[in-house]
Amino acid sequence: MTETDVSGFRFAGVACGLKPQTAAYGGRALDLALIVSDAPCSAAGVFTQNRFPAAPVLYDKQALQANPTAMRAVVINAGNANACTGEQGLADAAAMAALAEAELGLPACSALVMSTGVIGLPLPMGKVEAGIRDAAGLARSAPPGGYAQTGRRGRPSHDGVQLAAQAIMTTDTKPKLAARAIGPASLLGMAKGAAMIHPNMATMLAVVVTNAAAEPATLHAMLRRAVNRSFNAISVDGDTSTNDTVLVLANGLAGPVDPAAFEDALTEVCTDLAQQIVRDAEGASKFVTVRVSGAVSEAGARQVAQTIATSLLVKTAVYGGDPNWGRVLAAAGRSGVELDPAHAALWFAGDGGAEYQVVAASAPLAYDEAEAARIFACHDLLIHLDLGAAAAEATVWTSDLTHDYVSLNAHYRT
Amino acid sequence: MTETDVSGFRFAGVACGLKPQTAAYGGRALDLALIVSDAPCSAAGVFTQNRFPAAPVLYDKQALQANPTAMRAVVINAGNANACTGEQGLADAAAMAALAEAELGLPACSALVMSTGVIGLPLPMGKVEAGIRDAAGLARSAPPGGYAQTGRRGRPSHDGVQLAAQAIMTTDTKPKLAARAIGPASLLGMAKGAAMIHPNMATMLAVVVTNAAAEPATLHAMLRRAVNRSFNAISVDGDTSTNDTVLVLANGLAGPVDPAAFEDALTEVCTDLAQQIVRDAEGASKFVTVRVSGAVSEAGARQVAQTIATSLLVKTAVYGGDPNWGRVLAAAGRSGVELDPAHAALWFAGDGGAEYQVVAASAPLAYDEAEAARIFACHDLLIHLDLGAAAAEATVWTSDLTHDYVSLNAHYRT
Repeated sequence: MTETDVSGFRFAGVACGLKPQTAAYGGRALDLALIVSDAPCSAAGVFTQNRFPAAPVLYDKQALQANPTAMRAVVINAGNANACTGEQGLADAAAMAALAEAELGLPACSALVMSTGVIGLPLPMGKVEAGIRDAAGLARSAPPGGYAQTGRRGRPSHDGVQLAAQAIMTTDTKPKLAARAIGPASLLGMAKGAAMIHPNMATMLAVVVTNAAAEPATLHAMLRRAVNRSFNAISVDGDTSTNDTVLVLANGLAGPVDPAAFEDALTEVCTDLAQQIVRDAEGASKFVTVRVSGAVSEAGARQVAQTIATSLLVKTAVYGGDPNWGRVLAAAGRSGVELDPAHAALWFAGDGGAEYQVVAASAPLAYDEAEAARIFACHDLLIHLDLGAAAAEATVWTSDLTHDYVSLNAHYRT
Repeated sequence: MTETDVSGFRFAGVACGLKPQTAAYGGRALDLALIVSDAPCSAAGVFTQNRFPAAPVLYDKQALQANPTAMRAVVINAGNANACTGEQGLADAAAMAALAEAELGLPACSALVMSTGVIGLPLPMGKVEAGIRDAAGLARSAPPGGYAQTGRRGRPSHDGVQLAAQAIMTTDTKPKLAARAIGPASLLGMAKGAAMIHPNMATMLAVVVTNAAAEPATLHAMLRRAVNRSFNAISVDGDTSTNDTVLVLANGLAGPVDPAAFEDALTEVCTDLAQQIVRDAEGASKFVTVRVSGAVSEAGARQVAQTIATSLLVKTAVYGGDPNWGRVLAAAGRSGVELDPAHAALWFAGDGGAEYQVVAASAPLAYDEAEAARIFACHDLLIHLDLGAAAAEATVWTSDLTHDYVSLNAHYRT
């Protein structure tokens, strides 16, 4: 990924003791990130559909409804999800936003909040407050219009974006950033992983900032479509968390841009981040693209692709390098989408190589088992199912189901 | 399970070379079962919803529609599923039924067919035909009104029921039988496992025979309800196969019985078999009962319970002995059922012990982590979620997700 300067945003990542402390970062793991805009932002969000939404999700929905045109900051903590925390959790989420606003001299209701980590435990607000003060101080002292300084090992630096992206990680093994330029403007996004994670569930969080100008309603519509084709098109283990959130903030300092080009760039940034999440999924050893074509509708194609991508039998076959086309057909057959069993065709491809057909008219061809096995030994695998009904299609990305996944998720909480 | 004599049914299990041969059974694995009734049977079936149904599923649906009142036999082979086999597969399924009818001197369209095993390969009809002739010969020579003789190691014996139940196994480690008496009549059921299985997918098959009298329409309605509360209430890996079939045959030789008692007995036999399948699931180390109460509808309760039972994170937590209530709530929250997050309560219990509450009003209680861990170390685990909305409830049974499951399903086909 190429980092692009997004004028008017400052970033900070600090350690405030919410994560278990490690030798990295002078014994303090980064766990609180702050993103601040010098100018008011149009903002929009897409949130988890889980019926037990965490406190920050509820807070952000209200804040975006109240003030969609003048957002200024996002404060994000890792290590504690502030989920299943009742009334106290709601009060704590509001207090996080209010403290960030006060420390940065911003108006009321201009900060959004995201949390990820352990659920069911109250936020240790003393630590969180110290972290927000620390991060706000760094952001205030950052050069205006550029990336913020950060408190890594107490020394100021200019890699605030990298360190903010590190601060929101839980069991991610690397920070996830993506950027695109659109004329004079640019977009920068950061995300953390989607897998539900030891020792408790974790969450998919993403923030995209841009200096392009956009109306909140337009931004929201574009974000919904972009999320459908990116974060909603990945599946690691089929579970969606209480905290999943994608935010976009547009401060307009670079002026208006072509809406179609903007939506393309937003979709690309979201897709780039989503694929990074799958590649870094817990215990994953392979990256799988499931493409379903020949469908009656994009929604139907996506439903078939999602069912294939979440099938334990498909995911274990990918792990084992078994070109088991029967499991792919069986998963498609139980997806709930109306299919004509006479017309299914299936191809496999590995590491960007040519597609190799193994099934036509829903019955196996006399294919070369060794070639199919060679393809299934590749790290990047394409499973392409054509339903032979019409022209709609959808693509979903997933990982395999491995012994490591079981180990990571079965381990008793400590 | 107690075997009950079901008058007028004969059983045979023979080896015809469809399964890989092993040292057991004199080097020949049983792989073809025959069930024959001395009198015409009312019959009904419930079949897979998979959009790629196997040939025997299509054949049986037509046969039951054509002749629901005078069925006489069921022929079942393991080792080859006759699925994704096109027109040839349909012809082979019909030929299996026709040969059984001819060998047994039965009228046309009086035999049903079930297959399980490898998919996408044509049935080796020479072997199947030899097996059917062999099994029919044994059934003809069996004492009338009793269990059939069988060809185990070439010697006649009277354990035809056991050997028929063995012949339909794939990776099941033991035959599955259940029986109930209702006054002068009785029911006897046999089943094979639901897990999708190395080297290809396998299938859940079950047959229940009874000498009670029942009309086909009544039988079908009772079977649908019984299957909903038994075979449809178990989940091993969320995949449903192309071949799943449950049949019931009633020859009426014991006369009519109380319908409510009959349906209870049918549901009990199906539930007994379904639980045996979960207990014998591939790689399973634990047996989990998920009970969801306090729901607005039984369907909603079942949907929540199924979502919990198929959550990879819940299943790995059970495997790891981690009383991770957050994963249970998160799964319930994404089930698609409307929930009031303020009212969820959660209990755990182990090996039939008392229920131990860990969550009230959707937030964790100050429970004893050691006691919760002790419960989660038990082999038989109860997860009881109350939604606090109304009085409907449903129960689902499942297994855990283990390293062995991954190993069994990832292994390359040989």
